[in-house]
Amino acid sequence: MIQLSKNYLNTLSVWRRDFHRYPEPGWLEFRTTAKIADQLEAWGYTVHVGQELVVGERMGLPNQKEMASFFERAKDLGANEKWLEKMAGGYTGALAVLETGKPGPTVLFRIDIDALPILETTNDKHIPQRLDFRSLNEGYMHACGHDSHATIGLGLAEQMMQHRNKLTGTIKILFQPAEEGVRGAAALVESELLNDIDYLFALHIGTGVEKGVFVAGTDGFLATSKYDVTFEGVAAHAGAFPEQGKNALLASAQAALALQALPPHSDGSSRVNVGTLHAGAGRNIIAANAKMQLELRGETTEINAFYEQQMRNILEGIATMYDIKVHYEKVGSAVSVPSDRQLAEKLAQVTKALNIPTIDYQYFNAGSEDATFLMEKVQKSGGLATYSIIGTNLAAGHHNECFDIEEDDMLPAIEAWLNMLVSLCEEDMK
Amino acid sequence: MIQLSKNYLNTLSVWRRDFHRYPEPGWLEFRTTAKIADQLEAWGYTVHVGQELVVGERMGLPNQKEMASFFERAKDLGANEKWLEKMAGGYTGALAVLETGKPGPTVLFRIDIDALPILETTNDKHIPQRLDFRSLNEGYMHACGHDSHATIGLGLAEQMMQHRNKLTGTIKILFQPAEEGVRGAAALVESELLNDIDYLFALHIGTGVEKGVFVAGTDGFLATSKYDVTFEGVAAHAGAFPEQGKNALLASAQAALALQALPPHSDGSSRVNVGTLHAGAGRNIIAANAKMQLELRGETTEINAFYEQQMRNILEGIATMYDIKVHYEKVGSAVSVPSDRQLAEKLAQVTKALNIPTIDYQYFNAGSEDATFLMEKVQKSGGLATYSIIGTNLAAGHHNECFDIEEDDMLPAIEAWLNMLVSLCEEDMK
Amino acid sequence: MIQLSKNYLNTLSVWRRDFHRYPEPGWLEFRTTAKIADQLEAWGYTVHVGQELVVGERMGLPNQKEMASFFERAKDLGANEKWLEKMAGGYTGALAVLETGKPGPTVLFRIDIDALPILETTNDKHIPQRLDFRSLNEGYMHACGHDSHATIGLGLAEQMMQHRNKLTGTIKILFQPAEEGVRGAAALVESELLNDIDYLFALHIGTGVEKGVFVAGTDGFLATSKYDVTFEGVAAHAGAFPEQGKNALLASAQAALALQALPPHSDGSSRVNVGTLHAGAGRNIIAANAKMQLELRGETTEINAFYEQQMRNILEGIATMYDIKVHYEKVGSAVSVPSDRQLAEKLAQVTKALNIPTIDYQYFNAGSEDATFLMEKVQKSGGLATYSIIGTNLAAGHHNECFDIEEDDMLPAIEAWLNMLVSLCEEDMK
Amino acid sequence: MIQLSKNYLNTLSVWRRDFHRYPEPGWLEFRTTAKIADQLEAWGYTVHVGQELVVGERMGLPNQKEMASFFERAKDLGANEKWLEKMAGGYTGALAVLETGKPGPTVLFRIDIDALPILETTNDKHIPQRLDFRSLNEGYMHACGHDSHATIGLGLAEQMMQHRNKLTGTIKILFQPAEEGVRGAAALVESELLNDIDYLFALHIGTGVEKGVFVAGTDGFLATSKYDVTFEGVAAHAGAFPEQGKNALLASAQAALALQALPPHSDGSSRVNVGTLHAGAGRNIIAANAKMQLELRGETTEINAFYEQQMRNILEGIATMYDIKVHYEKVGSAVSVPSDRQLAEKLAQVTKALNIPTIDYQYFNAGSEDATFLMEKVQKSGGLATYSIIGTNLAAGHHNECFDIEEDDMLPAIEAWLNMLVSLCEEDMK
Repeated sequence: MIQLSKNYLNTLSVWRRDFHRYPEPGWLEFRTTAKIADQLEAWGYTVHVGQELVVGERMGLPNQKEMASFFERAKDLGANEKWLEKMAGGYTGALAVLETGKPGPTVLFRIDIDALPILETTNDKHIPQRLDFRSLNEGYMHACGHDSHATIGLGLAEQMMQHRNKLTGTIKILFQPAEEGVRGAAALVESELLNDIDYLFALHIGTGVEKGVFVAGTDGFLATSKYDVTFEGVAAHAGAFPEQGKNALLASAQAALALQALPPHSDGSSRVNVGTLHAGAGRNIIAANAKMQLELRGETTEINAFYEQQMRNILEGIATMYDIKVHYEKVGSAVSVPSDRQLAEKLAQVTKALNIPTIDYQYFNAGSEDATFLMEKVQKSGGLATYSIIGTNLAAGHHNECFDIEEDDMLPAIEAWLNMLVSLCEEDMK
Repeated sequence: MIQLSKNYLNTLSVWRRDFHRYPEPGWLEFRTTAKIADQLEAWGYTVHVGQELVVGERMGLPNQKEMASFFERAKDLGANEKWLEKMAGGYTGALAVLETGKPGPTVLFRIDIDALPILETTNDKHIPQRLDFRSLNEGYMHACGHDSHATIGLGLAEQMMQHRNKLTGTIKILFQPAEEGVRGAAALVESELLNDIDYLFALHIGTGVEKGVFVAGTDGFLATSKYDVTFEGVAAHAGAFPEQGKNALLASAQAALALQALPPHSDGSSRVNVGTLHAGAGRNIIAANAKMQLELRGETTEINAFYEQQMRNILEGIATMYDIKVHYEKVGSAVSVPSDRQLAEKLAQVTKALNIPTIDYQYFNAGSEDATFLMEKVQKSGGLATYSIIGTNLAAGHHNECFDIEEDDMLPAIEAWLNMLVSLCEEDMK
Repeated sequence: MIQLSKNYLNTLSVWRRDFHRYPEPGWLEFRTTAKIADQLEAWGYTVHVGQELVVGERMGLPNQKEMASFFERAKDLGANEKWLEKMAGGYTGALAVLETGKPGPTVLFRIDIDALPILETTNDKHIPQRLDFRSLNEGYMHACGHDSHATIGLGLAEQMMQHRNKLTGTIKILFQPAEEGVRGAAALVESELLNDIDYLFALHIGTGVEKGVFVAGTDGFLATSKYDVTFEGVAAHAGAFPEQGKNALLASAQAALALQALPPHSDGSSRVNVGTLHAGAGRNIIAANAKMQLELRGETTEINAFYEQQMRNILEGIATMYDIKVHYEKVGSAVSVPSDRQLAEKLAQVTKALNIPTIDYQYFNAGSEDATFLMEKVQKSGGLATYSIIGTNLAAGHHNECFDIEEDDMLPAIEAWLNMLVSLCEEDMK
Repeated sequence: MIQLSKNYLNTLSVWRRDFHRYPEPGWLEFRTTAKIADQLEAWGYTVHVGQELVVGERMGLPNQKEMASFFERAKDLGANEKWLEKMAGGYTGALAVLETGKPGPTVLFRIDIDALPILETTNDKHIPQRLDFRSLNEGYMHACGHDSHATIGLGLAEQMMQHRNKLTGTIKILFQPAEEGVRGAAALVESELLNDIDYLFALHIGTGVEKGVFVAGTDGFLATSKYDVTFEGVAAHAGAFPEQGKNALLASAQAALALQALPPHSDGSSRVNVGTLHAGAGRNIIAANAKMQLELRGETTEINAFYEQQMRNILEGIATMYDIKVHYEKVGSAVSVPSDRQLAEKLAQVTKALNIPTIDYQYFNAGSEDATFLMEKVQKSGGLATYSIIGTNLAAGHHNECFDIEEDDMLPAIEAWLNMLVSLCEEDMK
């Protein structure tokens, strides 16, 4: 087994703190991508950035103003123009490809790299604050650990090149944009660059697993769809001409009730949540506009699809009821896919051999993940996929302003994947 | 002026008590019509019964079983088969026509003759009970005074023949079916028998006017539409397969809320009422069916039409929302038409000359009346119409199980109309 | 092992068809109970009927009229007055007790005996119709197999006496009333006659298990509560004085929406269903009254209790919102209790030894059962309980008008219980 | 009659354009008040500013930040510190008192002085833009003509001093703050400075009356109440623990529906409008908070009070239904009071004598006005009150960003009031 030196943590820490200092939200990871791509190219990888990778429709794309602002910021921070050019318009993310030239498996490691629109705490107990790598991008924060994911990806890439002689086949590392809100994977999954994968590995740090423990395979991601809904009616003076209005506030209230009153599903658990509702322009005006953010979840992809159909019925019906326009847009989506137990067990053998405390397989009630789109693609084409968790001590829960990981837990993740890869190259288990 | 003898009240009383004893609801006035038609024919009128009179679609038609039951009852009570034949299928009501052969106006008097599905009281203070002319048709009752209207119509018809020499032109008396629920007039109004009317007179007894007072013209009838709505979804076991149901109970509940939440109208007052709602077959079943009875009203015909359009939007939208079938049927309708002040004043002159205490014109908040369809037709073709009230002491409110009128108040109504008619024949005011 | 002769099926068939012919719904099993009690007494059991058994509040009690009607019918059918006297007022059900006089376990077998308000089919394919034992109690039917349950109970009782010498301790057979709607068990569970049970056995025929297969233990009954809700507002003329009404129809519609929109529960599945809603007296009246039948279910008793609390909040809030009176009454209830695996395995060993195809333990999504109240009581006092299923070919689903079982499947159920009992008496496994 | 020179318009125009250039919304009229108070004092009036005038609770008070910002702005603009001190905390508005020392009536003229939070147009057709007196307070605008009202008040004050010898009794001119949103009058009405008024005059420019026409008395202001409602529930992760949330979004949606579904009132027209609704913090969070702005209106004060009671019922019921906190605060209020016809006719005689085209009395469907609180107080203590309209050509409707009046229409308003005052002083008509 290949063991990494503890000193390598210094390298990882520098990378991770740099990513942490410059958090960028989904579709705006200009500087993050450029930095990663520079490194990968320097190490000898073929690097794909832009529209050959991001081939599908992008959900939840930020508006023009934000787009321009983050793009300029990246430029100001010295991001390589070569990559920026390819990313213009929000085509962020990178794919590193290593063609070994030897026959062997095609393996894909998937990493997510985006940050969240959360204002990072300035509390002195918060290590990024104390050690001065708190977000410099006020109002945005790596509060889900994707800075450490990006670091793990870079570490793996560097180590792979150190052990290149042990590798066969084609190895790819995907630095995926826009995982938050489950927006990115669906736009990449159809890229030909991601075809014919034999083995797919994805992971997350934290999510409630004990420090240092490696969960080799997981199940329990809920299929989900996120929608933004707008209702457009007609304003009228509520006192003078109430009958002239087409009331978008009432329409959205009725829609919210109907959505929340959808029945449970006998095939498994489900969730419907209208999380936000904003309607109306003034007290004495029949509200002409309303906006709603909602999400649907299902224990299976089919259950989720059932609720999508119900939602469409409700929204189209509401439009007729109130004679208003209703527009809904999918801004995020993930399917429900379990890890392959076979691959998880293989990975667990590796981590056990590395003396990493290991749980072979675990059912998580862990929300949703768009890596499932890639897992589904791989499984459908006959490959195997597993989603792992590496435990750490969290300073606060995911998406909390005080969230922080412990950096030493990045090391075993790289060791696990690196040795797994070598093992697969040695003996193609399929 | 022609004054009627107080003794004539005996004749009227006999008729009225007979009608009261055999109440028949709308479209089922078989015996009532036959009895009236026999009299009219005996006095020399041309009498029209059946489909030459009832030419349009009939709203709120009773079901086959009720139809058969009332038809048989009328036969058993000795109703003239000649008329029964013409009324088979519910084509009730009669029109008496007197062609004087002299040039003169065409005048129409309109009378309604139907009863209500109300169980008459057996309280001894109730005069029909005490004097033994309580309803013999258990569960039905003349609780709105149409028995006295029918009597006034017959009295007028008899008196007209007594004073035939004073009449000119063409005089018609319409004994209209199904006024309750505002169902009948719309089915008759297109009859050619009711074309080219110069003067139309209609009246009601009671409705809050002081005993003996005659209100010559009124305004304030609300336009209205009555609808029956059915929702047809899909049943499912609520525990085992809730997602397989299409919930008609929820659909109807949401429709009810949306209907009641329709805005007021700046052009005048309005009413929306979902009066009944019946849904579901069992506690543990997703309800597959729901029924709703509702009514809309508007101070003008246009306002009422506005709510009809809103209702259609709501019901069609609900069908889409819940993926169910929604069917709505208009079962009653009336428009809003004011009396012509010119004609009301002419009539008021007559009643004042008869020493009947008179109010020329009054705005009533008096619900709805389908005589308005006839008034509208007459006015549109250049004629004049007025709707009068003859006050009486009511034993209880209209539609109450203890409702009763005082019979002597029928006399001045006949006198008023008879003298008005003579006056019109003498000098055509138009 | 004791094997029963196939001929014994003739006896069972006679009993079962008699029960089938005279179905009686919950709390009205006068004739059924009397017939059972006569037999039990004849065989030498001490028989308890009436208020020493039915000690608690009875949910979902029928009205006086139904009560009197079924009581008279039972009398007319020759039910023993001795038992009828004790059951007057609806205290139906019987407990047979056999004190062996030898030290040994206290064992309870629980049987349910009530029928359903379903009109039995007259289709000739339906065996009870063809063989002339269709319900003589028009509108009621044994459509859930409780006629065969009662028969199995009687069969067990008779066989126990045949093998009395092998028995020790105290053996009880409970013929429980009013299982449908989960109403009966809660009223009996506190009876001292049911204290200190070491082993409790209950069963159901059918419910989707393959013919002849015996499922020794089950889990998955949902806790449930059934409620009847009444809303009492104030009527008003919808056109004339809408503001004077207190609208019970709207209140109930909004309550239904709020109930259906209750959130799912993260601890397990749940169900809320407003199954029926009846509101209003007339189209043009603000509805003064509404009634609602609803049920709540939860995968655990705690989840169900969560929804009960939410329901109370909603209904009490609605009362305030609409300034009306809301009354809710629990008319059925069951808890969620799994079979003890230890006892199920013991029973499975017995059935396997009898060559009955056996499934040791199965999770059913099988609705609700009030035997769970008794199971809970037994488990809380240190005893063991198991709920079994005996498979059969069903002519149609439970509660269907064409429902029928195959009578030969009653025999292995009796054999299983009889041998299990003997085995427990031989060696008290606790 | 006293006629004012056309040249006086130049003076008025300067004042009005100054007010227009520095619009201040309700409770923040620091500079406006100071400027008015300086003038009044210079002319010899006793001027009351601050808490002796604003004695009651102030509805719809702006927040601290706005308060500080407008206060500082006024200071920067050179507002007299003497008045600013008294107004600190938002006690704006001024009362001018002239004690003539001669016996005579106590007369009050009421003027409103606040602006609106509307961004004034920069369109060149807009005269304030073209002539360079557009709002310098970006985002605020005199879009309802209160700049001209303040000017009319000042003009009246100056002219009164010119004709002081003709005056008797006590004359007061109230420059009332915060009329927009009907917030101010209720806070002043209890001031002892406003007791014992014999005659009260208020007016508005515009509101649809033809240019130059004076409407001496009006009726039709709707009673109204404005409320801000907050709902405070409990947040929870919508996917992980939906049952832990207390859903303020759903609660507010149900409340909105219930409010909009309140019945019409048979005593007169009414309005209910939930104009804005803002709920929730994120798509995947059970919404913990919601805010709602609503208004109620009634043709009479009693009708409005009926809806207030219904609203309280609904909001308190919703709190119970969803187990959340609901808080509602009245942020605006006006009653419905007609002008006294007697006084209106007196005023009409004066304007007719001045050759001002006059309508004696008109029913307006003119929204709400908090001058009605003062009118009510005066009428209750035996005085007379009338609310007048002076017509003008409006460039756009009230509250529109292009609103503008024609300045020459201010002159006849001053003439009307001045001559009316002189007339009252000459002969006390009461």
